[in-house]
Parts: sequence; C-alpha cells; structure tokens
Amino acid sequence: MDQSLLADNIDEYILRYAGNERTQRNQRSEPYREKFFTQVLDHYTFRPQSYKTFQQRYLISEKYWGGAEKNAPIFLYTGNEGDIDWFAQNTGFIVDIAPHFKALLVFIEHRFYGKSMPFGGNKEVAYSNSSTLGYLTSTQALADYATLIIDLKKNLSAADSPVVVFGGSYGGMLAAWFRLKYPHVAIGALASSSPILNFESITSPYSFNNIITQDFRGESEDCYRSFKICNNYISASSLYNWLYTAWVYTAMTDYPTPSNFLSPMPAYPVKEMCKAIDDPKTGNNTFAKLYGAASVYYNYSGTATCFDLDDDSDPHGLGGWSWQACTEMIMPTSGNNEDSIFAASTWSYEDRAASCEAYFGVEPRPSWITTEFGGHDIKRVLKRFGSNIIFFNGLRDPWSGGGVLENISSSIVAIVAEQGAHHVDLRFATSEDPKWLRDVRKREVNIIAKWLSEYYDDLDPAH
Amino acid sequence: MDQSLLADNIDEYILRYAGNERTQRNQRSEPYREKFFTQVLDHYTFRPQSYKTFQQRYLISEKYWGGAEKNAPIFLYTGNEGDIDWFAQNTGFIVDIAPHFKALLVFIEHRFYGKSMPFGGNKEVAYSNSSTLGYLTSTQALADYATLIIDLKKNLSAADSPVVVFGGSYGGMLAAWFRLKYPHVAIGALASSSPILNFESITSPYSFNNIITQDFRGESEDCYRSFKICNNYISASSLYNWLYTAWVYTAMTDYPTPSNFLSPMPAYPVKEMCKAIDDPKTGNNTFAKLYGAASVYYNYSGTATCFDLDDDSDPHGLGGWSWQACTEMIMPTSGNNEDSIFAASTWSYEDRAASCEAYFGVEPRPSWITTEFGGHDIKRVLKRFGSNIIFFNGLRDPWSGGGVLENISSSIVAIVAEQGAHHVDLRFATSEDPKWLRDVRKREVNIIAKWLSEYYDDLDPAH
Repeated sequence: MDQSLLADNIDEYILRYAGNERTQRNQRSEPYREKFFTQVLDHYTFRPQSYKTFQQRYLISEKYWGGAEKNAPIFLYTGNEGDIDWFAQNTGFIVDIAPHFKALLVFIEHRFYGKSMPFGGNKEVAYSNSSTLGYLTSTQALADYATLIIDLKKNLSAADSPVVVFGGSYGGMLAAWFRLKYPHVAIGALASSSPILNFESITSPYSFNNIITQDFRGESEDCYRSFKICNNYISASSLYNWLYTAWVYTAMTDYPTPSNFLSPMPAYPVKEMCKAIDDPKTGNNTFAKLYGAASVYYNYSGTATCFDLDDDSDPHGLGGWSWQACTEMIMPTSGNNEDSIFAASTWSYEDRAASCEAYFGVEPRPSWITTEFGGHDIKRVLKRFGSNIIFFNGLRDPWSGGGVLENISSSIVAIVAEQGAHHVDLRFATSEDPKWLRDVRKREVNIIAKWLSEYYDDLDPAH
Repeated sequence: MDQSLLADNIDEYILRYAGNERTQRNQRSEPYREKFFTQVLDHYTFRPQSYKTFQQRYLISEKYWGGAEKNAPIFLYTGNEGDIDWFAQNTGFIVDIAPHFKALLVFIEHRFYGKSMPFGGNKEVAYSNSSTLGYLTSTQALADYATLIIDLKKNLSAADSPVVVFGGSYGGMLAAWFRLKYPHVAIGALASSSPILNFESITSPYSFNNIITQDFRGESEDCYRSFKICNNYISASSLYNWLYTAWVYTAMTDYPTPSNFLSPMPAYPVKEMCKAIDDPKTGNNTFAKLYGAASVYYNYSGTATCFDLDDDSDPHGLGGWSWQACTEMIMPTSGNNEDSIFAASTWSYEDRAASCEAYFGVEPRPSWITTEFGGHDIKRVLKRFGSNIIFFNGLRDPWSGGGVLENISSSIVAIVAEQGAHHVDLRFATSEDPKWLRDVRKREVNIIAKWLSEYYDDLDPAH
C-alpha cells in the first residue's frame, strides 16, 4: 500500500463518493449481508456449560474489498449495546472511506443484543436471571470478536489482511481495549467517544453533568436558568426523568447536521432547545418553554400525537446495558453540583449497589474494569506500551470528560473537537459538514493510512 | 533510581551476597512469610457461582524492600503448576538481586495448586470433575494475579512501586502474557524458558525431542546409539516411560552445577548419563548401561533401594497440569522423526483429544491460546506493540524450540544461552556458575535496571 492512501483530499473524496452513494443508500437500508457465527458461551472456563454455543450475528460487505490475494484491509466495528444494524446505519464513516482503502466491512453484534442471543436465541431465557445474564460481559465480548475474526480470516484465506477496529461510545471502549488486548488480531483502533477513564475515581462524577450544563449555558444564560429553576419543583418526578433524558441525549447528539441516532433531530439541537426556551412568545410560561424544548428531542419529526412520560420502549435493543451497569460498567456520572442544570446530587456507589441487588440480585465489581483494562495513570502506562489507537472526543459530549484528551505517545493519539458531540466523526459524511469535522476525518484517515503502510512494509519489506 | 542500578559488577555482587546468605539459607527454608488472599472464583462472568471465593496463597518477604515511601520495586513471581514454595526454592535469582534493587519479593501460587484450592480448599472436590476443574485456566490465573497485586499495593500504600514479574516455564509464559495483558500492573517481565510459541503449527512438533536427541548425541554418538537401539524392544512399556521421563527431565535440567529441582542431580547430568552409557565396564550389557544412566536421574543421591517404574507420586503438586494439557495447553511436542533418540512417532491432536475425552470428559480448545495471547507472526505483531519483556532460553532445553529466540524490538528482547537448560538463569547463584551464566544474569539485571530507571523518570521527571 503506497503513499496514495495519505490523500490530502480525502474529505473531498469522501464527499464525492458519499454524494454518489447517498441516492443508492436511500433506496436500500445498507450494503451488508447478515451472517451468523457459532460462538462459544464462555471463553474463560472449561466447565461443561461453557461449551454451549449461540449464533452471533455479523454484517459483512465485500463490495469495496480489494481481496485476500492483495491483503486488502478489513475494517471492523466492535458492536456495542444494541442491534448491530442500528450501529451500522450510524457509522457511515467506514462505509465512506472503504472504497479509498479497498476495505472489507464487518460489523459484529455484541452478545446478548439484537439477534446474538445465547440460550437458543431466546431473549426471555437469556435475560431471565443472573445465571444466564452472567455471561454478558465485555471480556467475553472481546474474546467473541477475536474468535470470530480469526475464523473469518481463515475462511476468506485472508490471514495477512490487516484488521482495523472501529467503535463509538461503549463500542469505542471495546475497540481500544481490543487493540490493547488483541494486538495480534487488530493492527489499530479508532475509539470514538470512548469514556475509558470514567471508572473508579479517575474522572470526577460531576464531569458528565457539568458538560451538559455548559452545553446549554453556552447557548444562553437564560436557557440555563430556565432549566435550573424547573429543577426545584419537578425533581424526581416522571416529568423530571423525561426531561433529563431529553437534555442528556440532546447534549450527546448535538450534531452539526440533522440526524436520527437516538431520535430524529435538527442540526445543533441544543441551540434549538434553547431557542424554544428563549422564545419571547411563551413569556413566563415555564411549562410551555419546557414543552417546546422537549419537543425538539421527542417530536422533531412532528408526528407524535402525545407524549408518554413513562415510555420504556427500547427500539434499538439497549436493554442489556442496565445489567452491564450493575456488574462491570460502574461509571460514576451522576454527580451534580450547585451550578448544575440538574438538581444537585452526589454520586453514590452504595445506591447503585443497592438498586442492582434489588433489581438483579447482583453485586457490582466496581474495580474490575480498571483491574482488567487499566485506566489509572494511563499516560504513564501507555507511554511506553502499545501503539496505534486514536481516541476521538467531542467536547460538547458529556462522555468526553471520561475520555483520553491528550496524546499518549506518537501512535496513541487524541483528537479533540471543541464543537463535537458523541462519536460525530463516525457518522456518514454530508455536504453540510463543517470544516472542523472534515478536518477530524481527514486526520483519522491519514493516521489509519499510516498504520496500513507500516503494516504492509513490515509484511513485505521489499514491497 | 539512578544509574548505580546498572552495576557492571552485579555478578560479583550477587555472588558475594549469595555467599553470605548461603549459610543462613541452609538454616531455614526461605525468607518468606506465607499469606492468603481472598480471591474470586470466576473473573469473567457474573453468575452467582462466579462470586464464590477461595484462599489464594502467596509468599512475601519485605526483608530487602526499600519501602513504599521510596516507591521501591516489587519483584513478583507468577506461580506455575505446582506448590509455590517449590518454585520459590528454585528461583533464587530474584532473592539474590533483591538487595541490589531494594525489592519486595512476592511469589503468588497458581489457583488449583498447592494450598490455593478453590471449593473450600478441598482438593478432592476441586479436582472431582470438569464443573469444578473448569475454573483452572491461565486467563483466570492472570486475573487472579492482577487482582491480588492491586490489592496488595493498596494495602502497602505502594501504588507507585513498580512491579516486575518473573516466571519460568509455564510461569514464564504467564509472566510474558501478564506484561502483555496487564501493562498497567507490571512494568516488565522476565520470561524464562517460556515456550509461548509451542502452540498450533507455530513450532514443529518434532522440535522438542530433536533437542533432547541433540543433547545426548552431542555428548557422544555411542550414547545416542545406545538409547536408540533400546527403543526397538522397550517402546510403550513401563520401562520405556520410566526412561523417557529420565531423559526428558535430565535434558531440561542439564544445569552446570548440582541441583535439586525435579530430582537431585549432579552438574551436567546429560554428560553423566552418557558416561554411564559409555562406561567400558558394562561392555555390551544394554540393560546395565541404561540402569546406570537412569540412576543419574532416579538415584543420584544413592538412597533409593529399588525403583518403582509405575511410581505416580507427585511431590510438587503438579497434578493439575494434565487438566490444563487437555483444555488450553495443547502444545505439540511429541513428534519423533527417524533420527530421534526416542521411538519414531507423530504428533496427533486427535489422540490427545480422545484421551482427554476419556479421562476428563473435556474437549480441548487447541486454538484458544493463540486467539487470546497470539503467537503467530509474533515478530511482526510485537515489533510495534508492547515493551519490556526478556525472553530467556537455554538451547539445551527441549522447550527452547517453542521460545522466542530473536529480539523483537529494542525492549522486547531474547537472551539465548547455547549451553543453558530450563530456566537456569532463575536459579540461585553459586560460586561454580560458568561465565556464560553470570553474563546472562548480568544482562538481565541491567535490562531490569533500565526499566526501573525509565519508570522512575516517568514518575518524576525532575527526579
């Protein structure tokens, strides 16, 4: 692979390509074929039960692939806590750049989500109790990915095709951890908006809500004050939770273009919410202001005829996260200081543990993630260990507080976008993308190109 | 920590120290205190059963430690398949160098060995079937070590004390893998005689016995021929197995000084065996020659009054290895070509699988170790990933064929001793040690000193 991968005009390329594709893409949901792999239930014990298998779903597209005989690369998404087709739809970046790199595309679904359900594919059984849910862990998921990739490459006779892993949010954490734990399987990782430092005491539990507060306060002081005032009388009600969800997810997905990730949204939705708050037509009517703001998140499409404040539907199959948040994923994010846009509160591990005991009968292991994957003193630890990881973070994203925001070494780098939201870099390119976003993607493409060039040089020094 | 750690005269230092200590050491078994840590049964699931705990034994000596306030280092042995006190007795190297580095010494026992028995400390229960033995895995053991070390450092208020891990044989594999998987816990690893490449097809299944053949053939062609001839009529008998054990273990422990690792042995025992074979007094009496040779291994102390060819006693508690060899540790070593000192045979995975099924009712996972830890193309994979591992191998050791014999990067290095046997570098220094062995240890000490210097510089750049 030559220097042509280091295209200065990659953003134009992406856009040109993306423009051509967009029409096609609108006519069909995705270029992927759905396949299944027989996966082992428990990689880490040899008890008879560990040998049970389940069908793990993955999506694959050879459309852009240069082929095994050319050792063309494999771009692989390490699926997170939901249906894999949903992540595929919202991770257009790797589709956009696939033709440039002649990459095979693979999206692997995380065990216990979507169609990748252990215990006979029966979600009711799989989710019935802690004896079955107990196999839903990040370490088992990573071992699933390693096992599936090695088998897939063998079947494709593509042992020397380099694998680059991609992921956003929890999927980004998995991508980074995968590169750290399975360097023999993946040559590099783009970990987008992956809060790998939001464990134990590494990141302040106030960080998450402080960033949300700042997102709204940055739009207007009035917008911030209106939210703050309402806390006093609606805290802890259904309405409060309903609004809280809207504020959090709007801050997370404060993208510069219209999107439909968690909900259909306009470009810059935080600004739109604050516009509703600041709308002079609603005068002092706090309820009308909040209703207008919440509608940006809950009814931007204008099709909702009423709001169910206790709606617990789960269109993207995210339900297993509450189990993960009760076992490994003890991420302190719920602190609110006096300045917070939300009601003041402190993070309490004891409260989390009590509700986990009540709901699942399970005791969290709050130190397990840092024991297994590290996090403390990450700059010192990885300064002389590991390579080829990009940590992207958008600072408008509340999860960015738990992300890696500084370069660690020459090849473990941080890309930080002040105006960016939750894994915005991984979204399909559009002609309305601002320059900073195009620049972020260009940097990512060039870094990935460098990893591939080095890999091919190592593979065949005479190349 | 300053340059004084890079002592040119470390071997003299070791000897002087070792000399002083020897007398003391003869008066007591070891400088360690025995302690226990409450360890979780299954780190990788959250099933109710995974929360069971067991008492994991470790040995600790603060005698030479510079203390937490000085961030003095911790030298830690990642225990392998036997009683930990046996490994402590045979790993004098880290005791010898501890005063120089002011190191805390810790030896952790591997789960399911010695006193570190899950299921109430009851070996009969723990070893009763695959439902209990299923928790005996390398990955669980590594997670045990990480968990114990982090807790120990917390209790000692020694969070910033760097940990260097040491191990020989399977313990060396664990040490190398620990550095690769837990860089946030250990800053470096000395992996002595660790055949991490003796999996799948990476290393020839004929390598192991070829090296043994060469060890004996190198002494004298007659010695080799005498062994070869006897194959024809004793193959597959108890006598054959009894001799096979003697030849293998003598080759492994062909140390330049008298030792008592697997059995009391003279210096250069292969040479001693061949002397017995070549002894003109026994003429053409093959049986007398073999008896004389076997006596080097089985009765060097001269106290045995008879030999039990079917003796299956297990003084060092190695019994769990047969389970590991039936699950993860599928290491093809039993091939014998026509030139072999043993009867010609091929390695057969199917035979192994069939005997594992018959004995334990368990199906091996022959690709698991390379899936989890890598091994294929190790030079390419680790050239740009990881750091701070020493792979020591002695080429007289049959396991060296599956070892890392070439430098991988500037800090993942191979030390190869043509005359060395199985983890000879880790043994107590003696005044009879040959120069090559003193040189090996000096190199190891200087590399470890460099890791520590870098660590302390990173910790406190103004230091």
